[in-house]
Amino acid sequence: MLKYGYFCFLQALKKLLKNIELPNDLRQLKKEQLPKLAKELREFIIDVVATKEGHLGASLGVVELTIALHYVFETPNDKLIWDVGHQAYGHKILTGRKQIFDTNRQLNGISGFPKRSESAYDDFSTGHSSTSISAILGMAMASQLKGDTQKQHIAVIGDASIASGMAFEGLNHLGVTNANALIILNDNAIGIDPSVGALKKYLTNVKKGTAKEENIFECLNLNYSGPIDGHDLPVLLKELERLKSVQGPRLLHIITTKGKGLKKAEENQVAYHAPGKFDKLTGELQKKSPQQEPPKYQDVFGHTLVELAKKNKNIIGITPAMPTGSSLKYMMEELPERAFDVGIAEQHAVTLAAGMAAEGLVPFCNIYSTFLQRAYDQVIHDVALQNLPVIFCLDRAGLVGQDGPTHHGVFDLAYLRCIPNLIIFAPMNEGELRNIMYTAQKGLDAPIAIRYPRGRGTTIAWKTSFSEIEIGTAKQVKKGNKIAVLSLGHIGNEVQKAIENISKADTIAHYDMRFAKPLDLNILKSIFENFEYVITIEDGCKIGGFGSAVLDQANVLNYQGTIKVLGIDDTFVQQGTVEELYDICGLNAKAIKTYLEEFQ
Amino acid sequence: MLKYGYFCFLQALKKLLKNIELPNDLRQLKKEQLPKLAKELREFIIDVVATKEGHLGASLGVVELTIALHYVFETPNDKLIWDVGHQAYGHKILTGRKQIFDTNRQLNGISGFPKRSESAYDDFSTGHSSTSISAILGMAMASQLKGDTQKQHIAVIGDASIASGMAFEGLNHLGVTNANALIILNDNAIGIDPSVGALKKYLTNVKKGTAKEENIFECLNLNYSGPIDGHDLPVLLKELERLKSVQGPRLLHIITTKGKGLKKAEENQVAYHAPGKFDKLTGELQKKSPQQEPPKYQDVFGHTLVELAKKNKNIIGITPAMPTGSSLKYMMEELPERAFDVGIAEQHAVTLAAGMAAEGLVPFCNIYSTFLQRAYDQVIHDVALQNLPVIFCLDRAGLVGQDGPTHHGVFDLAYLRCIPNLIIFAPMNEGELRNIMYTAQKGLDAPIAIRYPRGRGTTIAWKTSFSEIEIGTAKQVKKGNKIAVLSLGHIGNEVQKAIENISKADTIAHYDMRFAKPLDLNILKSIFENFEYVITIEDGCKIGGFGSAVLDQANVLNYQGTIKVLGIDDTFVQQGTVEELYDICGLNAKAIKTYLEEFQ
Repeated sequence: MLKYGYFCFLQALKKLLKNIELPNDLRQLKKEQLPKLAKELREFIIDVVATKEGHLGASLGVVELTIALHYVFETPNDKLIWDVGHQAYGHKILTGRKQIFDTNRQLNGISGFPKRSESAYDDFSTGHSSTSISAILGMAMASQLKGDTQKQHIAVIGDASIASGMAFEGLNHLGVTNANALIILNDNAIGIDPSVGALKKYLTNVKKGTAKEENIFECLNLNYSGPIDGHDLPVLLKELERLKSVQGPRLLHIITTKGKGLKKAEENQVAYHAPGKFDKLTGELQKKSPQQEPPKYQDVFGHTLVELAKKNKNIIGITPAMPTGSSLKYMMEELPERAFDVGIAEQHAVTLAAGMAAEGLVPFCNIYSTFLQRAYDQVIHDVALQNLPVIFCLDRAGLVGQDGPTHHGVFDLAYLRCIPNLIIFAPMNEGELRNIMYTAQKGLDAPIAIRYPRGRGTTIAWKTSFSEIEIGTAKQVKKGNKIAVLSLGHIGNEVQKAIENISKADTIAHYDMRFAKPLDLNILKSIFENFEYVITIEDGCKIGGFGSAVLDQANVLNYQGTIKVLGIDDTFVQQGTVEELYDICGLNAKAIKTYLEEFQ
Repeated sequence: MLKYGYFCFLQALKKLLKNIELPNDLRQLKKEQLPKLAKELREFIIDVVATKEGHLGASLGVVELTIALHYVFETPNDKLIWDVGHQAYGHKILTGRKQIFDTNRQLNGISGFPKRSESAYDDFSTGHSSTSISAILGMAMASQLKGDTQKQHIAVIGDASIASGMAFEGLNHLGVTNANALIILNDNAIGIDPSVGALKKYLTNVKKGTAKEENIFECLNLNYSGPIDGHDLPVLLKELERLKSVQGPRLLHIITTKGKGLKKAEENQVAYHAPGKFDKLTGELQKKSPQQEPPKYQDVFGHTLVELAKKNKNIIGITPAMPTGSSLKYMMEELPERAFDVGIAEQHAVTLAAGMAAEGLVPFCNIYSTFLQRAYDQVIHDVALQNLPVIFCLDRAGLVGQDGPTHHGVFDLAYLRCIPNLIIFAPMNEGELRNIMYTAQKGLDAPIAIRYPRGRGTTIAWKTSFSEIEIGTAKQVKKGNKIAVLSLGHIGNEVQKAIENISKADTIAHYDMRFAKPLDLNILKSIFENFEYVITIEDGCKIGGFGSAVLDQANVLNYQGTIKVLGIDDTFVQQGTVEELYDICGLNAKAIKTYLEEFQ
């Protein structure tokens, strides 16, 4: 009831938007009305995101484009893919999801990204960048084979995403087809952080008119037009209508401003990418209450790296397009000659690090767990096979919350554990993260992956002095005599909470295993000798993960007790708050307590 | 003794090469002598490869470049990376490995690729394509940080490899650095198969002089020179000397002919990429004896796909640059409108297939197991998460022989098994491969990965009629009462051989499990109920693989018997013949027989 009332209130202010449920309604408007609709749509997005949170800047930047595309093209018959998908809020609102838009990114709500299973207007699910060109080409080729020459196929991709290798592969193929595909390059010179690289520099020249005759997209045999102002609806409509009647591969270059229409968001595009709650009129960010909290793991990484790099001149920091998200920005500010944002280029980031390690540098390559999937071969072939001591720091490992299944970092333990030579570590708290970073930069004879979650650690006074961690050693957190709980990483804190709230706690031992590889075989043997029950727990998929490693050893050592493996089941986990999702997955103190009581 | 005699015989004919062990010796020659050295080096390569086999065409194409690079630059102080590495034979011969070059690709011999651990002149191990730009940039940045402005950093990359996304990522970064790196684009218009794509088309225009002012590399802010004739030593030397004195990122475009100097190899570049034994004078390929053999798995795939595609018009074939190696060439010849070589672009290949599947086509995406590592994220994010029924055919799964550790397909079971929705199948023989392909194209509600090895199957009369395979069902091959052997894929034939040669064979049951996922839980339960001993065997890494899946279930079902998991240990496996390597890994009939006898 409340929700409906809120919706009516918003609607009353938006006279044109009020009558639009689907693109067909939009197409009833006159062209002259569209700028007003753009204003309303922008306000609608701001109104909702101000209180419900989400990705703001990208969607504000493409309000006009979104309206123009659905006005000119016959969606959903014509295919439309939004690369990454952060910018698809306007699209969602205009395609049947206006009334549930306030459930965006919530448990059981609509996805923050386009999602095939959610709407006939979401032709391809996105989340990770640079997939749209390949996917739209596949669809355009399908239409060709079916003899459908009318259907249009459109991908909208940003300048940060088009610089990624996968997008280049797509363009390189597209250019030698006669597929009916239109690529719209939405050039706002920023991804989540400002765009980097030679292509960005080139596009800047194009915009300034200082590029030569040369056009990089024409080199790739594409029909290029632009650059045009992506906020000028009449210009946009005219150009899209012209392009609609052109066959074959086309690329339209439009210039937009991320955060368009909210002054503060235009001025501070990084902060307003996903600003949290803010004042919808002034744009002022909601101040966090000043209570003392433990730090984010990313900040422990970021500050500790600076601390170490000041003493060890061989340390290098590398991030593929996540200086803010990874907190590498601190090193980029303090030691800019040794900290690099290489753009959305995970493959390059890893092999660049390998090249540096081969020459004796100590590269910390920080990549979100889910994005390291993009550089899997490079980890195997360029790093582990040559046994180069690259230090991978995998942020956002485990369940990441509202970004949902495209972004959960739940496969890394499984896909890394099978790689020879690689050490895998997960800190239970800030101190362990600091100490393993300290240990790694002192010089290992193998590469290491250090994985830690999104969110905060446990320790307010976290800047402890460094001490070395012996590779492959676990740590006993608590003694016990019947049940041994073996945890990996931050989730060990949930085990502690479970034990604190249980009676007969003396039956339960707890081990912070720290290394998924190499396992601490000494401790493991003694556990198998002394405990009837073993519970393993990790914030990753059960198949092939840490628990699976324990099972392997239990089999080799012929353990006769009972082992319970806790982790993520063999399914893609939905979106929701981190707390909601761990509850659903049975991976929190409450669930652990239940298991413990079963065995007691 | 014989070996030494053979070497002396070759040497007698090569007067200049005879006195060259290391690049320093080469640098004592006069420039005028280098063309003669090129002739000798070319003959030396041909002489050895004609009898010892290996990759011929690529190395013949860069003989002059190899000499010029080591003549002009101060290797090994200057850094030199050969992308992919097929072309590095001349480099190996001139850098201390002339006398052991006849051990190329053999067990305990020198690697067929540059290998860091083999020589100080091999600055970075290669094997997979397109890594050299990132790696050399890492090295050049390392020199910069160390304040070394003299050291040169050179990467040689072919036109097929530079079109891969990873190379673009490297160039995109390189163009905004002032790193002292020289990229040599070796443009011969062919990889293993002819190059494809818009960039190839563009480079053809450059060579013909029909390109416009535009230059794609200048767009990326690189100092471009060329194209020049890569077989003209004086021109090459002059240009390299000029470039040596230029600072910052440079790209030199040279034109070469793959197979240069051996007429037949120039005329048939695909066949002479790795021609097997041939007559060193005429180039005539050695005829295989006409005995009847079972077919290669790749040909069973290739011909079966044509057979199915003729009936099912929705079937599409996709290969990233392996039409010959995968045998997709048969479909490309017979149904060219539905079979595509997309170039070295595994990421694109997978998401293109996803786009097609989203529109109702039935894409067979054929990728070597080791190269699917390049598209891991796309399998998870674009295919499995959307549950699109793409059919992956993973050739060269298991140990591949002489290509060695860069190319073994031993991780796929582990890295795929953790992905929700994905079905994983390995055929024990030609019939199972045909039947699973037939089953998959009839329409599955999930993606499937079908993995099969390099080499031949078991059945001479392999063109059997099709029958459907129920997903997730294993097959009992032989009954028994004490030991159950559970095999996955072709290696099941070794189990059969082991059982044929054992006494008391009635104690041994054999199951062809077929699906690594979903496992046949019915059969598994009955096995756990009826057998004291279980042996699992697979041609992949033990960690996270098929045996690990059986252990998971044994734990869940509380199996009390003994399980032995056979597979590849947690180490990178060297090069050698397939037979030698399986023997070393204890994964053949002989080793299986020993294990069986232990349990009997």
